[in-house]
Amino acid sequence: MYILFEGIDGCGKTTQIELLKEQFKDIVVTKEPGGTPFGVKARELLLHTKITSSRAELLLFLADRAEHYSEVIAPNSDKLIVSDRGFLSGVAYALEAGFDLDFLIELNRFALMECLPQKIVLFSIDRETLKQRVGSREQDKIEQRGFEYLLKIQESMQRVVEYMGLDYMLIDATEPIDTIHTKIIEYINN
Amino acid sequence: MYILFEGIDGCGKTTQIELLKEQFKDIVVTKEPGGTPFGVKARELLLHTKITSSRAELLLFLADRAEHYSEVIAPNSDKLIVSDRGFLSGVAYALEAGFDLDFLIELNRFALMECLPQKIVLFSIDRETLKQRVGSREQDKIEQRGFEYLLKIQESMQRVVEYMGLDYMLIDATEPIDTIHTKIIEYINN
Repeated sequence: MYILFEGIDGCGKTTQIELLKEQFKDIVVTKEPGGTPFGVKARELLLHTKITSSRAELLLFLADRAEHYSEVIAPNSDKLIVSDRGFLSGVAYALEAGFDLDFLIELNRFALMECLPQKIVLFSIDRETLKQRVGSREQDKIEQRGFEYLLKIQESMQRVVEYMGLDYMLIDATEPIDTIHTKIIEYINN
Repeated sequence: MYILFEGIDGCGKTTQIELLKEQFKDIVVTKEPGGTPFGVKARELLLHTKITSSRAELLLFLADRAEHYSEVIAPNSDKLIVSDRGFLSGVAYALEAGFDLDFLIELNRFALMECLPQKIVLFSIDRETLKQRVGSREQDKIEQRGFEYLLKIQESMQRVVEYMGLDYMLIDATEPIDTIHTKIIEYINN
C-alpha cells in the first residue's frame, strides 16, 4: 500500500513518519524529490542550476516522480510504502505557478503510470502554530516566500484531493503527537 | 524564424548548419539537448545516471526542451534560429518507446508554449549511404542500436510532420552538399 504524507514545513509529518518506522517493521520510507540516484541529481539540479522556465522545473519534478515510481513504488507495492511528499504538493505548487489543474493531473497520472497513492495523510496547520514552530533561522527562509504562500499551498492540496476524490485523512497539526500517531495507525489499518 | 534541422546521424545536417552560419550573419545556432546551462546538466544526467523509467527520460528531455525554448528560442524570435534537433526527433524516439502520438504532441506543445518551429529541414538517407558514411568506430556504436532502428526513427519523423501538418522540406541526403545548401537557402528565403 502506497501512502502519501503531505503537509507544509513545520506541520510535523516527518515526526509522524519516524514514529511509523518504529511501528511497522517492513515499512518502506521514501521521499520526493530525491529517493533514487536520478532523484538525487535532479534535486541538485533544482537547487544549484539556473532554471528560467517554470515548465522546465515542473517537467523535471515529474521526471523525478516517474523514476521514483518505477524504482521505489512499483517494486515495493506489496509492502507498506510511506512517501514524504509526492504528486499532491507537486500539483499544489504548480497550481500556484499558474498551470491548469486538469492538465497537471493528467501529467501526474502519466508520471505515476496511473498508480496514485491509495491513502493520503494530509496535515493542516494554522498560521500562528506554524510561526511558533518554525525556528528563527528557518523563519527567515520561509518569510522570503511568505507564510501566506505556504498556507495557500496547504489549501490547494486539500482542494486537489477533494477534486480528485482521493482517499485522505486530514490531520489537525495542533493535536498532540501521540493522538495524531494513533489516528494515522487507525487510518492505515482500516 | 525558428527552423528545426532533423535527421539521423550521418545525414549531413551538421555540415549544412555550418554552411548556413557563413551565409547568415545574425543566425542563432543551437541544439537539443544542451543549449542552456540546465540542458548541459540534463545531458550529463541522461548520459551518466541510471534512469530506469522511460517516462522519466521523456520528461527530462521535455524539461530541457522547455528551458531551451524559454532561454534560446523565445528571446531570439526576431532572428533566424537554427536548432540541431528538437521536438521532432524527441517525438520519434518516444514513439519507438511505445508512447501515444497525440499525448506526445500535447506534451511537446506544452514544453514549447505552443511555438512549434515555423520550418523544418528533414534529412532522409538510405541504408547503404548511411553505412558508407558512418566510420567504423561510429558504426560499432550505431550497430548496437541497429541501423534499422535509426531508419525507423527517420520514417517516424516524416510521419509525424505529415500528421501534424507542419511546413517541412525533405532533403535527399545523397545529393551533393552544394545542391542541398542551395535548396535550404531557397526554403528559408521563401
